[in-house]
Amino acid sequence: MSSHPAVLFLVSADTGCVQVDPEDPHVFVTDLGVTRGDGIFETISVCNGRPQALEPHLARFARSARLLDLPEPDLALYRRAVLAAIEAHDDVPELFVKTVMTRGIEGTGVATGWAYATEAGDFAAARTAGIRVVTLDRGLRHDVAQTSPWLLQGAKTLSYAVNRAALREASRRDADDVIFTSSDGFVLEGPTANVILRLGDRLVTPRTDQGILAGTTQASVFEFAESIGLQTEYAVLPVAALAEADALWLVSSVRQAAPVNSLDGISRQVDGELTRRMTEFLLGRTE
Amino acid sequence: MSSHPAVLFLVSADTGCVQVDPEDPHVFVTDLGVTRGDGIFETISVCNGRPQALEPHLARFARSARLLDLPEPDLALYRRAVLAAIEAHDDVPELFVKTVMTRGIEGTGVATGWAYATEAGDFAAARTAGIRVVTLDRGLRHDVAQTSPWLLQGAKTLSYAVNRAALREASRRDADDVIFTSSDGFVLEGPTANVILRLGDRLVTPRTDQGILAGTTQASVFEFAESIGLQTEYAVLPVAALAEADALWLVSSVRQAAPVNSLDGISRQVDGELTRRMTEFLLGRTE
Repeated sequence: MSSHPAVLFLVSADTGCVQVDPEDPHVFVTDLGVTRGDGIFETISVCNGRPQALEPHLARFARSARLLDLPEPDLALYRRAVLAAIEAHDDVPELFVKTVMTRGIEGTGVATGWAYATEAGDFAAARTAGIRVVTLDRGLRHDVAQTSPWLLQGAKTLSYAVNRAALREASRRDADDVIFTSSDGFVLEGPTANVILRLGDRLVTPRTDQGILAGTTQASVFEFAESIGLQTEYAVLPVAALAEADALWLVSSVRQAAPVNSLDGISRQVDGELTRRMTEFLLGRTE
Repeated sequence: MSSHPAVLFLVSADTGCVQVDPEDPHVFVTDLGVTRGDGIFETISVCNGRPQALEPHLARFARSARLLDLPEPDLALYRRAVLAAIEAHDDVPELFVKTVMTRGIEGTGVATGWAYATEAGDFAAARTAGIRVVTLDRGLRHDVAQTSPWLLQGAKTLSYAVNRAALREASRRDADDVIFTSSDGFVLEGPTANVILRLGDRLVTPRTDQGILAGTTQASVFEFAESIGLQTEYAVLPVAALAEADALWLVSSVRQAAPVNSLDGISRQVDGELTRRMTEFLLGRTE
């Protein structure tokens, strides 16, 4: 994989979607996306040419914009950019498209936007053998999105340095990923994934009013679960629920469903059969 | 002021400092500085051609890099870029230079860096009549830098979306700036400034082991205070100390010392004489 995306479209109200050379720089040093991480993004997985959960991704993009008091993104334009980027990309089994909108160059008040497509990495091992996860404190109470909305919990922003630092901490602890917990002891989410627990014949995920992202892949997993007769539930989960769960997954675009095979250094059983069917469902999504 | 900087130098280990056209884009869409706000910065004020507190700024730049597990910045190179940017800029009374280092383009492992110079805005009113400030919860305990270093408190990162959101919240509350408080009731800092309280003949600022930035301007103010016989102190301050203070300032590069003339909607006395002398000292710094 190149360090530049394969396909890049700039998105702006003035000029619409314009394909540009991804080997060139396109962002100005005074763009607030760079200087302040002041912008939003979505990552949409594309399987055999079909974008997955595109409309939920676009709806969440608009929701993040509202949480940041950004101008409303022109979703028709971003939808067009996503589809054009897929069309322009080589035909590969799995790729992803990332959409970005920033507050724009300082002082202009005009948002900057783009969408790029890149071939996805190989997540076969994570999807079958699973991943090692550690829990880390996110430092915030579970109700902080209600009490302190300026902390932007629940928005998918470009200010992800803490999420990256948490992944480095996981690596120092010989783990692959993180489940954040609230300062008052509840299960939240991963840095770029939602947590799903199986408790008997129920799949449970943390309620999204706890300052976490409403997961597009998590919603698809729940749809799958209901189709095979499992119950689904959004709940406020104390951290102890993780250890008690029959199985755990981190689910996200691109990597899809990754079963947790160890939590805080303690090995866990992977639900291989359910994971296999889940993955098959996720990769087969046609919308 | 243009929306692009007047002068821009790219900084890299390979090519050193290279002056480039600031009207061109220089950042790639896959630079982790953009995609993840994964980088650090410093803003150095320059008064009559003299950079102020340059060495403390560079030292803090290196400290932020360590907190983010970034490669160690070549301070000699960044120092050279700052001085070159000042040299190349028109001769104006006040400008600032911003240095940035990001984790670089995804997958390359090579940091990206630059420094730019821009004329400063006019902060005369903020420095004399003062600013209206509100306190906002930062959601984190005051000891979180020790317990949860992955939250990157105390690092000056590009992930400043929350700081910007806090300023918008201040604006909604008819205020100009913010003093963050910890979830357990202590005074922290502003989004881009340190807080200084006058309590009788003492100037007091929150202790920097509370996940806040060690202020370069705050250090200069303490140097000034000691030179005129005031005591200085770093302390753990309960929020109530703000209301009890004889005077309050938010101090930072570029805007320098801004006296607080209202706190959470309650008018406050500005210490005009001390502020005037403080500003004179700050603008007159020769190193």
